[in-house]
Amino acid sequence: MTFKKHLLFVTAILAVSAFTPPAMADGDGEIKYRKSVMSSIGGHMGSMAAILKGASANGANFAVHTQGMAELSKIAGSIFPEGSDFGETEALPAIWEKPADFAGAVKMFQGAAANLNTAAMSGDMAASGAAFGELGKACKNCHENFREKKKQ
Amino acid sequence: MTFKKHLLFVTAILAVSAFTPPAMADGDGEIKYRKSVMSSIGGHMGSMAAILKGASANGANFAVHTQGMAELSKIAGSIFPEGSDFGETEALPAIWEKPADFAGAVKMFQGAAANLNTAAMSGDMAASGAAFGELGKACKNCHENFREKKKQ
Repeated sequence: MTFKKHLLFVTAILAVSAFTPPAMADGDGEIKYRKSVMSSIGGHMGSMAAILKGASANGANFAVHTQGMAELSKIAGSIFPEGSDFGETEALPAIWEKPADFAGAVKMFQGAAANLNTAAMSGDMAASGAAFGELGKACKNCHENFREKKKQ
Repeated sequence: MTFKKHLLFVTAILAVSAFTPPAMADGDGEIKYRKSVMSSIGGHMGSMAAILKGASANGANFAVHTQGMAELSKIAGSIFPEGSDFGETEALPAIWEKPADFAGAVKMFQGAAANLNTAAMSGDMAASGAAFGELGKACKNCHENFREKKKQ
């Protein structure tokens, strides 16, 4: 994780070097982009979990995470472009083979993220906890159907 | 990375179990929260780098990342509470020993993130690239002075 973060940082610095020719967008590049977006999504999920279970006292930050998650959910459908199905990815072919099913799973994620943000903005932490549970189900639905099973 | 993400997800699900007593906020919990926030920050950094160097064609998503980063920068100062300086953390004692210096580094991050978001909202990708470089410097400044050096 740590080394990966360091790599991300180095990549970021390299990206703005005036002498680096622009890379061509391709499957590998899109997979890297997707993994970065997923890092942000996962980070918000972990942040909200830490607050909801009381492991962090930073409840004042909760809406930053629900808002961030809602915004990220809106671009979730765009991070699986054609051609990003090969290489270092756990994305399953079902994403591209069953586009209607996948679109439904993304919509479920977007709805759950929007509902959680609404609950958080109202300041109702009980409703937020329930909405967070629904968001967790949406994550699980997509990961179970469209992501490679984890190896032990 | 993958296993860590899986853990985050499991943690998230556990967090909403009705039978899980709330954890007490403590140093370990705050460190976990901080790492999750940093994952979101790093994810946005990687996403923006992929777009700026042309590795991803998802330029339409750029402002989602600059906005997300600007919002996350605002809470950066809150993720290092007293008592979160021991345990599984790379945060250096200087954060708590030199609070004015650390506050300055956080402010530099916040200013750079806000400037980048302003540039992105104006649609000027050249200005965005330059502002992204400044943001990278702000990251580097904080990591060099307030985070343990990486081991090879």
